[in-house]
Amino acid sequence: MARTSKINLNAILKITGLLLMIEGLFMLSCLGFSAWYSPVSLSSLVLFNPAYDFLPLLVSGIVILIIGWSLWLMNRKLDQNSIGKREGYIIVSAAWVIISLFGAIPFVLSGTTPSYTDAFFETMSGFTTTGASIFTDIEALPAGILFWRSMTHWIGGMGIIVLSLAILPILGIGGMQLFVAEVPGITPDKIHPRITQTAKRLWLIYVALTFAQTLLLILGGMSAFDALCHAFGTMATGGFSTKNDSVAGFSPYIQYIIILFMFLAGVNFSLHYFAIKGKFSKILQNEELRLYSVIILVSALFISLGLIFMQGTPVEKAIRDALFQVVSIVTTTGFVSSDYLLWPFFAWFLIFLLMFTGGCAGSTGGGIKMVRINLLFKNSLLELKRIIHPQAILPVRLNGKSISQEIIFNVLAFFLIYIIIFAFGSLLMSFMGLEFESAVGAVAASLGNIGPGLGTVGPVLNYSQIPDAGKWALAFFMMLGRLELFTVLILLSPTFWKK
Amino acid sequence: MARTSKINLNAILKITGLLLMIEGLFMLSCLGFSAWYSPVSLSSLVLFNPAYDFLPLLVSGIVILIIGWSLWLMNRKLDQNSIGKREGYIIVSAAWVIISLFGAIPFVLSGTTPSYTDAFFETMSGFTTTGASIFTDIEALPAGILFWRSMTHWIGGMGIIVLSLAILPILGIGGMQLFVAEVPGITPDKIHPRITQTAKRLWLIYVALTFAQTLLLILGGMSAFDALCHAFGTMATGGFSTKNDSVAGFSPYIQYIIILFMFLAGVNFSLHYFAIKGKFSKILQNEELRLYSVIILVSALFISLGLIFMQGTPVEKAIRDALFQVVSIVTTTGFVSSDYLLWPFFAWFLIFLLMFTGGCAGSTGGGIKMVRINLLFKNSLLELKRIIHPQAILPVRLNGKSISQEIIFNVLAFFLIYIIIFAFGSLLMSFMGLEFESAVGAVAASLGNIGPGLGTVGPVLNYSQIPDAGKWALAFFMMLGRLELFTVLILLSPTFWKK
Repeated sequence: MARTSKINLNAILKITGLLLMIEGLFMLSCLGFSAWYSPVSLSSLVLFNPAYDFLPLLVSGIVILIIGWSLWLMNRKLDQNSIGKREGYIIVSAAWVIISLFGAIPFVLSGTTPSYTDAFFETMSGFTTTGASIFTDIEALPAGILFWRSMTHWIGGMGIIVLSLAILPILGIGGMQLFVAEVPGITPDKIHPRITQTAKRLWLIYVALTFAQTLLLILGGMSAFDALCHAFGTMATGGFSTKNDSVAGFSPYIQYIIILFMFLAGVNFSLHYFAIKGKFSKILQNEELRLYSVIILVSALFISLGLIFMQGTPVEKAIRDALFQVVSIVTTTGFVSSDYLLWPFFAWFLIFLLMFTGGCAGSTGGGIKMVRINLLFKNSLLELKRIIHPQAILPVRLNGKSISQEIIFNVLAFFLIYIIIFAFGSLLMSFMGLEFESAVGAVAASLGNIGPGLGTVGPVLNYSQIPDAGKWALAFFMMLGRLELFTVLILLSPTFWKK
Repeated sequence: MARTSKINLNAILKITGLLLMIEGLFMLSCLGFSAWYSPVSLSSLVLFNPAYDFLPLLVSGIVILIIGWSLWLMNRKLDQNSIGKREGYIIVSAAWVIISLFGAIPFVLSGTTPSYTDAFFETMSGFTTTGASIFTDIEALPAGILFWRSMTHWIGGMGIIVLSLAILPILGIGGMQLFVAEVPGITPDKIHPRITQTAKRLWLIYVALTFAQTLLLILGGMSAFDALCHAFGTMATGGFSTKNDSVAGFSPYIQYIIILFMFLAGVNFSLHYFAIKGKFSKILQNEELRLYSVIILVSALFISLGLIFMQGTPVEKAIRDALFQVVSIVTTTGFVSSDYLLWPFFAWFLIFLLMFTGGCAGSTGGGIKMVRINLLFKNSLLELKRIIHPQAILPVRLNGKSISQEIIFNVLAFFLIYIIIFAFGSLLMSFMGLEFESAVGAVAASLGNIGPGLGTVGPVLNYSQIPDAGKWALAFFMMLGRLELFTVLILLSPTFWKK
């Protein structure tokens, strides 16, 4: 009790410093593409000129590195073991806010965004792997800035994998301890060494998949730059593209590759680990993966039929468009290959509903998550049995194991809070003048970390015309959704700050 | 066990017979207004002529009476005590279906509806106190038919009060046993004598309030016919009007009277009972009533301000329109005094959200109900505390008492299933060609027993253009919502039919 009575600020600052150093290094790595696509000369070393991004990236990167290093130095003597659960909660939320606040600097210094609000929105959208954009002409942006933009996705995705498979289970958020209990090396008592071990293994898989996709995209005729940016956006289930029409202009081959890797990115990364270890029975028995696959296939089938018979789309294109858009929305990536708002009503309503399923737990996908959807449906059916047999004890089962009431309670509460935030968030957006579809679409797409929504924030339009206050609110929803709601919400609870 | 192993069909048929006899009598009571407004002559005694309704009502009433009487006679020897919980569930659902199937006959025989589907939709909408209509020219309908239409509301309201305060608590549906536990005379063990006693008391209050409202409306210059019809629609929180523009054309005095009585109809009827007994402290301490009042006042305040400052509506009219529409939607009545789709975006979005709150438990109002909303919010806040202190046991409290986990579980499941039905229902409607707003509006308004929705089923339009299959689906949603979901859903569960 004594150890947790006071929040250890040093620990928080030290880790923040470490994260900022990593961010600074990643930012400086964008200088290569910047220099390659627009060779550096004395006259190109300027700030606030959207045509040149070398100096803005260099200055931002160095400043962030120095600030991070200073924070780390000042607090480095700290004993790692003094980091408790409360520090953990604060660090997780603070991490996303701080790296977004600093990550926005290159957009401002290069003059590519009209305001800091826009820059912050874009960066938070990147780090939360949302992919909602305020840029109307993406192709006009310099290469270094575009690469940084896609890299925020990739960094965010790395963060999320470790967060959902190693950190949140320990912090006891949203039943995560259960969904990923099978990941090797995770036990809820020891924090430090296990996290490092698990993180390394999972990152290796993440990097390998990114590399594989990049290669396959290059084989399809993409430039190395576009291939890397799209692989970043895919593996992180982010959705930032380097093209104004997202991936609609690319070849069918490239679209199929992206479909495949979006699907893989939406799968629990511990299953990828099992695949490598050859434990295929664990994969085939995984209920969440089965539900995820079935929802995708059934939805894509219905939409394909709708496109073929109601709009006369050629069969192959109908299947590809339907599959692409369904996988893109379910995994919460948000790439666009076809404007789904022009599809039959039921098809885009289905797309809207799919905004609430999300990918699998332990993937880079956001949203409610398939495992929760699974538990929610099972519990609903059991509740009917419970009314008929009030004396019987009927636990929900997952992958053959009974789930404790506390977990089901937590999942139900998660769903409820998700819907409450969605409802009040939409009301807030309608206060700011957004009409019905745009309001609900913007909030569903932000909270679920998807990107494109409905109406004026649909697949071919974007978030630039939303008032500033709305952008800050949506950025907050992105963070809420990305951090499984509770991680952020408990910081708002007075109980948390009491001794 | 032996007693409940076989479903007692005789009991079900006997009670159904009784209900049909009551329905037949009520139907015949409409002959008075029919004859008064269009004096009976030999030439007016025709069927399938929308101008005359005397013969259709007479024939339908007598046929229903005879069928009911026969059913009752054939099964009357039955011992009341052989009615178990399973029979109870079946009777409740069957009652609404059967009286709607038969109650639709006069519409068909008079030729006022183009099809039986339309007639059934209108009747189910009446008995479930929804108020969604397929009539485009209500004022052209003959008086007897109009009176029968409003009477379906009133009968439905009577049914709901007894159901929610006496029958469902015994059947253990949706935590109802708890919300209304304070009603005098209800104990979960003895079914028959208590129901009769409770029913009589509550109906007396219901009849007295209807009578009072009718008088006050007549004092405001309404005809006795219009006053009765609107009092029926108000006290049942139904919403059928006798006018094409609902209550928009009536004087402010009449609108205020209707606001007052809609508010009263949305209150738990056991509180009315306490008021009569002079136990005002029970009323003042009631958390649900407080939440209900606060939600209404705050919503009406925001909307009034919006109307005054964003659309320049005169102050008194803005307050009246806002208050009327908020009370009408929250209580799930559905009378319309102003087209809310022409209000600022946020105002009608707020109206849409209010479609999900519903009135108080134990009132004639539908929807999720204020007591559940209250518990859901409290549980969400507690869930945050539970994450911070995983060891602590933190029960939700209502009116100062701890609520068992089973009840909270049930309430969470109720909310979840409500949202699932809403989502899939809307998808189904979009399959039938309704666009986004109309689809979600139609399902929200049907499931919540409100009536007017959004888009093409908004306050000034109606349900006539919806395809037949959609009308049957919406009628089913009305019943689902009206019977607290579980009552109907458990009949669809295979477990229910097993021994």
